[in-house]
Amino acid sequence: MTAIAILGGTGQQGSGLARRFAAAGARVIVGSRDAARARTTIATWNAAGAPIEAAANAAAVDQAEVTVIAVPFETVGALLAEVGTHFKEGSTVVDVTVPVTFVGRTMTMAEVPEGSAAEHIRARLPAGVQLAAAFKTVPARLLAAAGEPLDCDEFVCGDSDEARARAAELVRLLPRLRAVDVGPLSRARHIEHLTALAIAINRRHKIHDARFAVVGLP
Amino acid sequence: MTAIAILGGTGQQGSGLARRFAAAGARVIVGSRDAARARTTIATWNAAGAPIEAAANAAAVDQAEVTVIAVPFETVGALLAEVGTHFKEGSTVVDVTVPVTFVGRTMTMAEVPEGSAAEHIRARLPAGVQLAAAFKTVPARLLAAAGEPLDCDEFVCGDSDEARARAAELVRLLPRLRAVDVGPLSRARHIEHLTALAIAINRRHKIHDARFAVVGLP
Repeated sequence: MTAIAILGGTGQQGSGLARRFAAAGARVIVGSRDAARARTTIATWNAAGAPIEAAANAAAVDQAEVTVIAVPFETVGALLAEVGTHFKEGSTVVDVTVPVTFVGRTMTMAEVPEGSAAEHIRARLPAGVQLAAAFKTVPARLLAAAGEPLDCDEFVCGDSDEARARAAELVRLLPRLRAVDVGPLSRARHIEHLTALAIAINRRHKIHDARFAVVGLP
Repeated sequence: MTAIAILGGTGQQGSGLARRFAAAGARVIVGSRDAARARTTIATWNAAGAPIEAAANAAAVDQAEVTVIAVPFETVGALLAEVGTHFKEGSTVVDVTVPVTFVGRTMTMAEVPEGSAAEHIRARLPAGVQLAAAFKTVPARLLAAAGEPLDCDEFVCGDSDEARARAAELVRLLPRLRAVDVGPLSRARHIEHLTALAIAINRRHKIHDARFAVVGLP
């Protein structure tokens, strides 16, 4: 079984993914700046399935074939500067970040010179590592509500067919979530705008879990 | 009954809207640079419902309470320079354009200094006219296939509750299409990226009518 490191794995989105991957039987290593504190957090989860491990970020990357980046977007640069040399040649990174920031109740998308959070991360990864983006539009709150069905589509883009296939495998670990391949990594900018649209719908309609399904795709 | 002018009403998206609005019983005036040629085109449509009229763009605006802008994005500036003085104070404009361009098979989104096609249009409209955006994500081919059900959601944003309500009324003229209010006009940039995502999905999966439904919105 592939070992999955989740950096930022104690956050809402990361912990939701960690618990749902473990419930599907995957080996999950939650990466954190502080492994001991992560261990304490994990102990509070009523997680089903495989036991979830904890490690410092770099040590988590060392043990993984697939690394999920689930830290807040604004800390991604510092994280990759710290762990960049630990990625194995040929390993896959899955970016789940979105460059959305809140000032009070006002949501804005950060201006990312590379065009998207995913391309920002690509520019900071070693060449031998493949990058895909996924899990950007599934609501973090819903993801963290372990028992609740997701019932939506999740958009996957990436460097190569292989990178997208690996990310799609993670998506398929979660029941009732369909992976929709949308092509090269540059498509991430559209996906990230979709997250902003979901947040706008949540605000406007006083709901929490707006998400999307593609109609017309068999 | 509100009179609806559709500028660019002989194009694929405009003609689909014209025929579907007329089928719902609305009074529709197709605006074109050449009214006579538009009349010839309309005569070839097997349109159900109310008869569809044709007029030069400015004359169409003169007769309408709601004007739909369905010309190619790159011609919007010239169109509004021509017809801008014809909008009635308090009338509503509905923008359906998307700043997507194709060079061969390669799709790119035009860099729009205002942030979106809708905001680009806002900057070129008289202050007394209200603007909303809608029909940006429903596929043009599907829209033009008069008998085919749409079965998706359509995102509406705009200057004010009133502008959004007027655009949502147009959406509701089309059976099996739900209007989803996503807030202020600045949200148009997210909607336009969604159109680009739909095109990317069509390309990748060799389909034609990818579109979206919001999950989690009662």
